Amino acid sequence: LEDLPVVSLAADAAHDCHPADLATGQPTTLAAVDTPALLIDLDQVEANIQAMQALATQHGLRLRPHVKTSKSAEIARLQCAAGAVGICCAKLSEAEVMVEGGLDDIVITSPVVAPVKQRRLAALATRARLAVAVDHPQTVLGLAAAAGAFGVRVGIYVELDVGQARTGVSDPDELAELAALVVRQPQLRLDGMQAYNGSVQFIVDTDARRAAVDAVATRIRAARAACAARGVLLPLVSGGGTGSADFDVLAGAIDELQAGSYVCMDGQYAGIDWPQGVPPFGLALTVLATVISTPTPTRAVLDSGWKTLSVDAGPPVALDVPGARFRFGGDEHGVLEFDDPALRPPLGSVVRLRPAHVDTTVNLHDSALALRGGRVSHRLRIGARGCVR
Amino acid sequence: LEDLPVVSLAADAAHDCHPADLATGQPTTLAAVDTPALLIDLDQVEANIQAMQALATQHGLRLRPHVKTSKSAEIARLQCAAGAVGICCAKLSEAEVMVEGGLDDIVITSPVVAPVKQRRLAALATRARLAVAVDHPQTVLGLAAAAGAFGVRVGIYVELDVGQARTGVSDPDELAELAALVVRQPQLRLDGMQAYNGSVQFIVDTDARRAAVDAVATRIRAARAACAARGVLLPLVSGGGTGSADFDVLAGAIDELQAGSYVCMDGQYAGIDWPQGVPPFGLALTVLATVISTPTPTRAVLDSGWKTLSVDAGPPVALDVPGARFRFGGDEHGVLEFDDPALRPPLGSVVRLRPAHVDTTVNLHDSALALRGGRVSHRLRIGARGCVR
Repeated sequence: LEDLPVVSLAADAAHDCHPADLATGQPTTLAAVDTPALLIDLDQVEANIQAMQALATQHGLRLRPHVKTSKSAEIARLQCAAGAVGICCAKLSEAEVMVEGGLDDIVITSPVVAPVKQRRLAALATRARLAVAVDHPQTVLGLAAAAGAFGVRVGIYVELDVGQARTGVSDPDELAELAALVVRQPQLRLDGMQAYNGSVQFIVDTDARRAAVDAVATRIRAARAACAARGVLLPLVSGGGTGSADFDVLAGAIDELQAGSYVCMDGQYAGIDWPQGVPPFGLALTVLATVISTPTPTRAVLDSGWKTLSVDAGPPVALDVPGARFRFGGDEHGVLEFDDPALRPPLGSVVRLRPAHVDTTVNLHDSALALRGGRVSHRLRIGARGCVR
Repeated sequence: LEDLPVVSLAADAAHDCHPADLATGQPTTLAAVDTPALLIDLDQVEANIQAMQALATQHGLRLRPHVKTSKSAEIARLQCAAGAVGICCAKLSEAEVMVEGGLDDIVITSPVVAPVKQRRLAALATRARLAVAVDHPQTVLGLAAAAGAFGVRVGIYVELDVGQARTGVSDPDELAELAALVVRQPQLRLDGMQAYNGSVQFIVDTDARRAAVDAVATRIRAARAACAARGVLLPLVSGGGTGSADFDVLAGAIDELQAGSYVCMDGQYAGIDWPQGVPPFGLALTVLATVISTPTPTRAVLDSGWKTLSVDAGPPVALDVPGARFRFGGDEHGVLEFDDPALRPPLGSVVRLRPAHVDTTVNLHDSALALRGGRVSHRLRIGARGCVR
């Protein structure tokens, strides 16, 4: 690992919020990279993009990847170049960064409710094809008024709760009524229905996961039928995720796949069973950390804690470090414990960590080191980092 | 809450990474603020600063607040203006931002081990009085070499592990040997010993917390005696925290207090008992969130999830919302559940949340709205947000 060559780090250094990181010279090996650092293997990213696109295409589905995983316009552009019809964003401010980055077809997957935000959304719709999830008549009318003020038409995905108990309408008739209200607003365009269940993604057993996907499909069909009964045409249904995609494409209920995590993968997705036996997507994102203390024969302390690695899905795993058990040591420290002192890495060495949850880990970093052919090719900007508005 | 006036938000808007937030007009009330947003009550911050400074001064201790809590040079300057001798930073990149922000006396509380970082530290020492914690001879020698290369003298705090089982030397004689090695390096300056135990801070019971502080003091005295036996003069001992400060000042083992969280407080510190009955510091930081969905009579969904509020110390608490139970709903959502539908806030309303852990929550945001006299006075820059290197 230490001898992996690093080339041309300076090219994109201006993207980084702390150019001083690079001020003392050009790193020539990964061991010379200032840590903690996110590493993104773009070859693996592209292989993952191809694999998910092939799955969608083979079954006649559109792919609209969720970019809340990478928060990077560069990766979103790779996804669209490979065949995605556009992207999903979680928040309006994320969509604003993506439009700046050249993306022109975006669905915002959470309701946008505040009037100040609805006006900003309408303003953004003058620059890109935009749609947004809604689950309440008040939100529909607010968006229609904002779209009218900016002279644009805003796309709408009416949102169905298919079991996550978060946002979305549960009752099929209520969903159909909401869709009919959208159709009556000339400033809005009914693009489809959103039906996503995040809790299905991490069901470990494949049969149980498939059964959960089928239960989602049943709910979708009931809502579709309620819309048809009212004469409301639903152009498409959007949903699914990385863990459920193999079954989403077979269940026949959705037309557009919203998966996101497949682009990088993480510990959560390494922890579930896959119908293929192994995950069809490879780990593309790791965190490079340095051993800054070896205070006992069986302990190595890393420079990476809660401010570097998210904890919502549990601790990371140290790769290439046999016998290591990771525990968080606070904001800025991670502790590796060993039973065998011979396995403890030396002071100053670097280790790679696999985050448990890629989305929230990426969101802690302004940039990543992009690898091509095992070498660092450039600094990849995470332009939508922190865009929670 | 909705009617709280907001003034002069534009003044410092350039500090924010997404100026589009403010593009659609000047907010005039908190309800018009784009959420999620951090709110920092600077009046409460100053009261907290005065209270901790008074405690330290009254007992003859120096106060060197840890700024990893606020990551803001503006707040660090308020602390120094009130009497602090300087500040603590967790990482070198944090210290670099603080020097840019006008702070000139900084202790970095974690070992700086990588050669590329030791050179950067030495470069920074040409611009400010700098010291750093060390716990290994190799680190001492590396820092001496880097300091020599830059023609500066770098201060050293030899670090004693007083029970946290993270960084630091455990054995008093080994600590004394390390201190003697520092004294032999003409490029280094032995500033003192660091002895901090984070796990003591959150012991709920005051008697048990006091006993834990006394145990720390015993370890400190043993290390001090070992240094004296070798003829090594330790100018001071630095340690303590917000939860232990009341007992740190009485135990007589430390000369310099490193507390940080008191400046804003959080749910963790609201959860422990205090010798005064109530915490001597008030809550100064909250998160403003909007209800973006009310899909059932007993559920309100907020626009704030793991990317807005840290989870390492548990979920936040909704303030001024009787009967609300918060659960995280993923990266971008928080869910409030109610038993009584009459208590559920309406769609579009804003609520304030108290984070469980202030340090890691602040680190998710580029700026905060600073309140003075209950009104928003300006946008406060969190300049060291993301500075984990």
